[in-house]
Amino acid sequence: MKGAAYVGHGRLDVISVDVAPPGPGELQIAVAYCGLCGTDLHIAHGDMDTRVRTPLVFGHETSGTVAAVGAGVEGWAVGDPLTVMPLVWDGACAACLAGHQHICQNLVFVGIDSPGGLQQRWNVPASLAVRLPAGLDLRTAALVEPVAVAVHDVRRSELQVGDHAVVLGGGPIGVLIAGIARDAGAHVLVAEVDAARRSRITELGFPVADPAATDMAAEVERWTGGAGADVVFEVSGASAAVRSATALARVRGTIVVVAIHSAPREIDLQRVFWRELRLLGARVYQRSDFDRAVDLLQQGRIPVDALITHVVPLEQTASAMDDLAAGRAMKILVDVAGSEAS
Amino acid sequence: MKGAAYVGHGRLDVISVDVAPPGPGELQIAVAYCGLCGTDLHIAHGDMDTRVRTPLVFGHETSGTVAAVGAGVEGWAVGDPLTVMPLVWDGACAACLAGHQHICQNLVFVGIDSPGGLQQRWNVPASLAVRLPAGLDLRTAALVEPVAVAVHDVRRSELQVGDHAVVLGGGPIGVLIAGIARDAGAHVLVAEVDAARRSRITELGFPVADPAATDMAAEVERWTGGAGADVVFEVSGASAAVRSATALARVRGTIVVVAIHSAPREIDLQRVFWRELRLLGARVYQRSDFDRAVDLLQQGRIPVDALITHVVPLEQTASAMDDLAAGRAMKILVDVAGSEAS
Ligand SMILES: [Zn+2]
Ligand SMILES: [Zn+2]
Repeated sequence: MKGAAYVGHGRLDVISVDVAPPGPGELQIAVAYCGLCGTDLHIAHGDMDTRVRTPLVFGHETSGTVAAVGAGVEGWAVGDPLTVMPLVWDGACAACLAGHQHICQNLVFVGIDSPGGLQQRWNVPASLAVRLPAGLDLRTAALVEPVAVAVHDVRRSELQVGDHAVVLGGGPIGVLIAGIARDAGAHVLVAEVDAARRSRITELGFPVADPAATDMAAEVERWTGGAGADVVFEVSGASAAVRSATALARVRGTIVVVAIHSAPREIDLQRVFWRELRLLGARVYQRSDFDRAVDLLQQGRIPVDALITHVVPLEQTASAMDDLAAGRAMKILVDVAGSEAS
Repeated sequence: MKGAAYVGHGRLDVISVDVAPPGPGELQIAVAYCGLCGTDLHIAHGDMDTRVRTPLVFGHETSGTVAAVGAGVEGWAVGDPLTVMPLVWDGACAACLAGHQHICQNLVFVGIDSPGGLQQRWNVPASLAVRLPAGLDLRTAALVEPVAVAVHDVRRSELQVGDHAVVLGGGPIGVLIAGIARDAGAHVLVAEVDAARRSRITELGFPVADPAATDMAAEVERWTGGAGADVVFEVSGASAAVRSATALARVRGTIVVVAIHSAPREIDLQRVFWRELRLLGARVYQRSDFDRAVDLLQQGRIPVDALITHVVPLEQTASAMDDLAAGRAMKILVDVAGSEAS
């Protein structure tokens, strides 16, 4: 069987993968689709070489069906549709004991710290499997993981009906956050520097601004009648966005840090103090976020077609990653099952 | 009558103040004591010249008695002991309408934006007056305002019984926060660079570390059995403390920004994201914090004698401010009434 792997030195390759039967407590998954994301780019570019062991079959935005059931696994049958919540916690650290298993201090992220879903047959602990409803097609279901990220971000913000929310960064996660916030009854404004992304966001019905050409603070003040935004989601990873976020939030407003900022960022703590702002980190998702994501997709409340811009065969994973890095795509799915015959 | 005033150009002076009778809705206060704080230093050093109008009688940590009652004021009689909550809000802005009057977008801070308490007779709106219990001496009562700041900071943190709290900065507000947090059942560690302050904090029974000579992250990890601090109070205003704060907090821990940071600060947003930290601004106090501060002082739960290091006459306000700036004092009170005869 085949898999797409990071082989080190900033290179990807299609490799041959031995298929072992599922171990006790495991399910073997026939992977249908696997989405590519920014974390995968970091792996591919060698940014995570100190963390990953090569060759690494990566990928963690998956959908598929059960191909085989390991010993001791109950409640699953061959053919059942599923996705995978790619987190393994130790259940023993201070974070786990406080109920924050999803950010366990010794978290294993499947697809980074252990083999991921860019392979035709994939053995995972049955405890990570999340059942999919019959009516949800597997292409759409590959979005459950990124949707769960956005659900977690919105839930963490404690956004309320009627709130004004600004999303800084209109990539896939930013658009998902915008969609979920609007679905929850908020007014949403998106800031995005890329013109192609802006026109796609406009088509989705969101007001959108180019932060490079707009006085965002004045724009948000006008948009909110002088109050400022209830919630600002920082999804861009840009240092300018961090400086902007504090200027956009209302008194006692919330800023959610969704993006990865690999370098320390300058922040206006005077504004944090003056307006009693709240800055929250938000990372991955809890099981309830995953379940909510399945529901939202099942109910057709996520703009799936606007998000999935490309579906490529496993062999084109490397060039698809180049497209992603160059900003030529929103969400790219790899059609893992489509390579089945080869 | 006399008052201590900022007269511009970074200079303080004792000036003569005309005493008008209290206007309708006002109380005239015979000021007993007025504490000096860091904000007063900023005024005196000219840092707030764009905000203040000179000559400014400053001072906002006051105690005294009613000297005269203006028309229409009910419930107050000459001789009643009181302190002043020095905030005037407009009641009309988005912050006020959301219930956050204490951080009104058009807040008038009495003693900065209008005349303060460093004068023998002081007319204030009766709505700002806070009654003092009979048993509370006026010297102690001059601490109500800074205690209210610390109460607000601790309440904002949502500190809970048994939590581990780190206080970065052991000046008067840091020591008050430490005391209130300990009184609320938390374990408290104080970080302070100044040796004289450290020995005073040790005498109060707190473990204390010199952040310039200590690996604070390792120290807090050891102190908390590997978990990290539940709450970190940033009271120092130092950029190094901001970098440190994120390293000290546990997963889902809280950092409260108490200090004024006049320049943007570098912050480790990767850690905020990774541990899902919460950073909160905390500014001044609400009426409930003021009432709680009166209670705590009345009940003897604040180490007043360790905090008040100097009591000086009004004429020595300028030199007292120099002592404060040089770190030669914790809390200095001006004995305003003691200058009565002159
Ligand atoms: Zn854990
Ligand atoms: Zn207001």
